[in-house]
Amino acid sequence: MSLAEFALIDRILARTTARADVVLGIGDDAALLQPRAGEQLVITTDTLNSGVHFPVETPAYDIGWKTLAVNLSDLAAMGARPAWCTLALSLPDADADWIEAFADGFFALADEHDIVLVGGDTTRGPLSLSVTALGQVAPGQALRRDRAQLGDDIWVSGTLGDAAGALRLWQQNRLKVAVATLLSDDETLRERLLRPIPRVTLGLRLRAYAHAAVDISDGLLSDLGHIAARSGVRAEVEADALPISSALREQLGREGARDCALRGGDDYELCFTVAPSQRDAIHALSASLGLPLTRIGRIVEGEGVHCADADATDGGYQHFSERR
Amino acid sequence: MSLAEFALIDRILARTTARADVVLGIGDDAALLQPRAGEQLVITTDTLNSGVHFPVETPAYDIGWKTLAVNLSDLAAMGARPAWCTLALSLPDADADWIEAFADGFFALADEHDIVLVGGDTTRGPLSLSVTALGQVAPGQALRRDRAQLGDDIWVSGTLGDAAGALRLWQQNRLKVAVATLLSDDETLRERLLRPIPRVTLGLRLRAYAHAAVDISDGLLSDLGHIAARSGVRAEVEADALPISSALREQLGREGARDCALRGGDDYELCFTVAPSQRDAIHALSASLGLPLTRIGRIVEGEGVHCADADATDGGYQHFSERR
Repeated sequence: MSLAEFALIDRILARTTARADVVLGIGDDAALLQPRAGEQLVITTDTLNSGVHFPVETPAYDIGWKTLAVNLSDLAAMGARPAWCTLALSLPDADADWIEAFADGFFALADEHDIVLVGGDTTRGPLSLSVTALGQVAPGQALRRDRAQLGDDIWVSGTLGDAAGALRLWQQNRLKVAVATLLSDDETLRERLLRPIPRVTLGLRLRAYAHAAVDISDGLLSDLGHIAARSGVRAEVEADALPISSALREQLGREGARDCALRGGDDYELCFTVAPSQRDAIHALSASLGLPLTRIGRIVEGEGVHCADADATDGGYQHFSERR
Repeated sequence: MSLAEFALIDRILARTTARADVVLGIGDDAALLQPRAGEQLVITTDTLNSGVHFPVETPAYDIGWKTLAVNLSDLAAMGARPAWCTLALSLPDADADWIEAFADGFFALADEHDIVLVGGDTTRGPLSLSVTALGQVAPGQALRRDRAQLGDDIWVSGTLGDAAGALRLWQQNRLKVAVATLLSDDETLRERLLRPIPRVTLGLRLRAYAHAAVDISDGLLSDLGHIAARSGVRAEVEADALPISSALREQLGREGARDCALRGGDDYELCFTVAPSQRDAIHALSASLGLPLTRIGRIVEGEGVHCADADATDGGYQHFSERR
């Protein structure tokens, strides 16, 4: 890319909104930020590579949205209020239309959550996008993976498996994804894969109730496994309790849908543990947010994730060890 | 890469040292940090792509070193004290020896500057490395590009053009760079290209003297152009005053060396402006750090960067407009 092309990209990406705590934004060697007094910083980095984390034909708007969404989801899982982010963007060439659409998706989500782009680096290379997102939280209030308590209920937000289902259909060429066309039949699952909703508000509200939380990026069994391993407990999940969308069940059937819900990644819902005494509060929170929150199991003594499933051969429990 | 391979990489990269202000490091959805009360955050992101920002045959240790160095250099140019960083690492495959050597280089420099790795993301893809580095500075003390004053002297640290010279020789196959072999003849230039020294301590000390500062990553004319443009001034440089190493002059001759010093990138020296009344202080600082600091010009009314060169045809001045 020429220097003029880099300059064009920088101009397009400079259309971020203002925050009073950005002392110096894009344009110097680094940005200067004034964090809120006494609060802790929450920082996360996630990368999306073309052909690995999204199909190569994914529309630019959706890539922009998802690039930020996966990072906001990590902030949500910590109960942090989003503040600032940087973007490392590797591009094979400078296509102004592509960059504009990418920026439209990125900033649509950024503006919604009042997170501003304060820096980054545009380089020539295979399409790859890394965001580092920062948020703030009062000391002691962050939602961690290592605080699940014996007897806690296990909850998840939204429905599970939709993104994985969409990807399967896409790979089977059964989901129509022409770049400029949204087809209403497939839209529900497609949107769940390409425009995940980071549960930022839920994460903020959960600071009052949850003992432990994680976002579901690698699949429920895998991510809940992180809570079990780091908290030194066993997580028991009722497969029949999993919230599964009618769209997923229609497309993949009961077994396929359940498999996606247990093992599929990319949902970016939150999984969290709460004392049983708070069930009414969580139901009220669900109603207040207009977001399903479903109790799917409980925390007991032991280790690993175990799933009660009528189809399993060993008395109804399947065991899943933590993935990594 | 398999999950076991990702786990291996994570283990190798988890060998970071501790800092009291890291409340929660690698292993949760995000890291938790406790910034120093009242200070501002300084944040920068830089990416290195294989074959673009370093030759594909660059040793892993040097890639690890340089990946962090280019980001520390940005913190140095702001006068910030380094604190934390994240690393987004895309790898085509998991080669444990490569990762170990990469980590050796990365952490050698990190430990030197007390900056700790608090998170990141390892993905499969073409070799690409993005670091986001954070530092801290007291309000009002950061070194910015937009504060150069009329009458200021222009200074640079170290020698200029060595990295660009090394790259030219490398491309001409005149620099011997066998992966495991350092050849003493070429070592000076090679080290300047592959293991740049971020001028962190210099940046911290310059907070007491400098009006404006920038690091030289894209070449003196280009980076000094940023100071001129953002400060609304003209920068006049004396080509004969440029600090050029004997190694560079021997390899490339007077003209080639000067061209590298003016236009070559990747030096990661600091360029800064200081009132003439502080010349003695800067000379003393140079002696105290054991680092050459050379006065190469001054800030005057006007715009752009102008270079007084005995070879130029228009009365001795060549004009260079800002690159971007």
